[in-house]
Amino acid sequence: MRNTPTDPLPLAQALIRCPSVTPADAGALGVLEAALAPLGFTCHRLRFGEIENLYARRGTGGPHFCYAGHTDVVPPGPAEGWADDPFSGLVKDGTLHGRGACDMKGGIAAFLAGLTDYLAANPGHPGSISLLITGDEEGPARDGTVKVLEWMAGRGEIPDMALVGEPTSRARLGDIVKVGRRGSMTAYITLLGTQGHSAYPQRADNPIHRLVRVLHRLIAQPIDQGSEFFEATTLQVTGFDVGNTANNVIPGEARAMLNIRFNDLHTSASLTEMLHAALQAEEARYEMRIDCSGESFLTQPGPFVDALRRAVVRATGAEPALDTGGGTSDARFIARYCPVAELGAVGSTMHKVNECVPVAELRELAGLYRMVLEEAFA
Amino acid sequence: MRNTPTDPLPLAQALIRCPSVTPADAGALGVLEAALAPLGFTCHRLRFGEIENLYARRGTGGPHFCYAGHTDVVPPGPAEGWADDPFSGLVKDGTLHGRGACDMKGGIAAFLAGLTDYLAANPGHPGSISLLITGDEEGPARDGTVKVLEWMAGRGEIPDMALVGEPTSRARLGDIVKVGRRGSMTAYITLLGTQGHSAYPQRADNPIHRLVRVLHRLIAQPIDQGSEFFEATTLQVTGFDVGNTANNVIPGEARAMLNIRFNDLHTSASLTEMLHAALQAEEARYEMRIDCSGESFLTQPGPFVDALRRAVVRATGAEPALDTGGGTSDARFIARYCPVAELGAVGSTMHKVNECVPVAELRELAGLYRMVLEEAFA
Ligand SMILES: [Zn+2]
Ligand SMILES: [Zn+2]
Repeated sequence: MRNTPTDPLPLAQALIRCPSVTPADAGALGVLEAALAPLGFTCHRLRFGEIENLYARRGTGGPHFCYAGHTDVVPPGPAEGWADDPFSGLVKDGTLHGRGACDMKGGIAAFLAGLTDYLAANPGHPGSISLLITGDEEGPARDGTVKVLEWMAGRGEIPDMALVGEPTSRARLGDIVKVGRRGSMTAYITLLGTQGHSAYPQRADNPIHRLVRVLHRLIAQPIDQGSEFFEATTLQVTGFDVGNTANNVIPGEARAMLNIRFNDLHTSASLTEMLHAALQAEEARYEMRIDCSGESFLTQPGPFVDALRRAVVRATGAEPALDTGGGTSDARFIARYCPVAELGAVGSTMHKVNECVPVAELRELAGLYRMVLEEAFA
Repeated sequence: MRNTPTDPLPLAQALIRCPSVTPADAGALGVLEAALAPLGFTCHRLRFGEIENLYARRGTGGPHFCYAGHTDVVPPGPAEGWADDPFSGLVKDGTLHGRGACDMKGGIAAFLAGLTDYLAANPGHPGSISLLITGDEEGPARDGTVKVLEWMAGRGEIPDMALVGEPTSRARLGDIVKVGRRGSMTAYITLLGTQGHSAYPQRADNPIHRLVRVLHRLIAQPIDQGSEFFEATTLQVTGFDVGNTANNVIPGEARAMLNIRFNDLHTSASLTEMLHAALQAEEARYEMRIDCSGESFLTQPGPFVDALRRAVVRATGAEPALDTGGGTSDARFIARYCPVAELGAVGSTMHKVNECVPVAELRELAGLYRMVLEEAFA
């Protein structure tokens, strides 16, 4: 057994130096393959549409632990906002800078470092370990994790548990283990009225008035008060447009866009019914299109979540909070197949200019991931 | 005294053949001048900005009766919608066709015909008669009746009573005498919020939600139930726009446009206060711009309205209804100076394609206008 832990920094820098803005791979998965092959992993490059993905597995037995993540990054945004080249992987004052440093090339590098040390200490470990790394998490998420999971299912390679390495920590490393996510759906409503002159409203049917009444009904009271592991469901009207410029013309239609983030008390189907009911209560003639980007999911407390808690307590000395807040991640796809949770770096700079992560935090995360493997296979 | 009434048709045709789409005069006022001069009228061509106007007066004594109208017309609209050239002044099956036939070149021609017969029968009639004819009624109404009235006031020529010849009859000639008009104002509201991500609404302040609540408050109940001579005030939201295309972004501001048609229970100032109160009740940060195109006005029952009623009863055999409905007209400007009412042809085809008026109705209107003069000077 080695005494000096493997340093995740060089791999993190090598990954950041690939400008893999969605959907470009820019060599990032090749860097990973080169690191995984010497560790005994069998690598599968899986291309779906424009997207490069990587599935790598070591061992064939159970239990099967999968680490899931992505090498694609969001665009750096305005260049003048960055103190340095966003793809330089520069270390300044002990902090690694660059797009993807925390979301989530740093996390992947930390997992490989922790994995290296785990395998060195447990060369004949039970079960198998895999990595599911996509290049389509920040994009439409159609040709990434979803497709790789289908491919894995076709080969009978569904894992027994999966850890997504998104930067879910809030104030300090390991303070949060994300055990579920709210669902997200968007409704596009077109309310149909009858055009007319504003001096003769009795001859028209103002679709804005009906839509205001429908929306008022929907926002008048909270949809729920939250559930055991979830915050309250939220409904936000993010668009309302008519496009009428004549002040004395009652327009013929009005359009609204609603985004709902929902907990495990609802499904996109039950919420769609709620929207229809509100529209019908106002006797509206309407068209509605629903786009659900993910149902809510929850990994119930159990052996896998317990293993993660033990690892966090060993690595940080404090209990993590089990949380389900925030946006969506690819964990929503994995949840269809097996228990999944998320644990990674502090994400305060993700998607921002000057994204960065302290090198010490990356090294601490590598140690945490080694303990996760120890506890998962205990 | 002549036995055969003067026919308004030739003058109506001559006026329609001038394509005087606002702001063009296209010779229309010249046609009128040529008809008025032989009757003893002193004509003043008054140009304000781009607009030609005509003020013509016969006599200098009181009482002073003014006939007000306009020779400008709205555009004909799609040519393929018209059975004939909209400026041909064609008579088919006893009906005069063309843009302006009823609004209101036909009405002006009928007044000149009735006036001709009145003067022939009453060569030494008391008082004086004037015509205030503008070319800016269908346009912004800035350089027309308003400016001519200021010019008249400067010369001490404010009339004692004014009749506007708009086509106010509903089902048959003379069924309506319009003795007032509702006011009209438009409010442009920008509600300011705080932009954010729809997954974290607690960190944002959704301006659409606040604006929906403000508008719901304003449309929840009628503003009033109408008054003795007026219909109820109406408020119509004619615009609501955000311009946000990202379904998961709470926008920073939302804009609405409201058009209010109000009776004599309100002024634009009192309604502006009502809007501020509704906005403040929702603790909104906002900007609001008010554009009032006319306060409400009412010509109370009295000698002038009685003269009009008597004339209608003599000409048609039926009492007119005193009405204040519909849109706005230049009568709102005249009301600031003297009693004003509106009486003209049936307006069912005004502003539409294939605008037309039965020739028999024009001739009946000429007789009615002759009786109006008889009663006004009785
Ligand atoms: Zn991510
Ligand atoms: Zn008119």
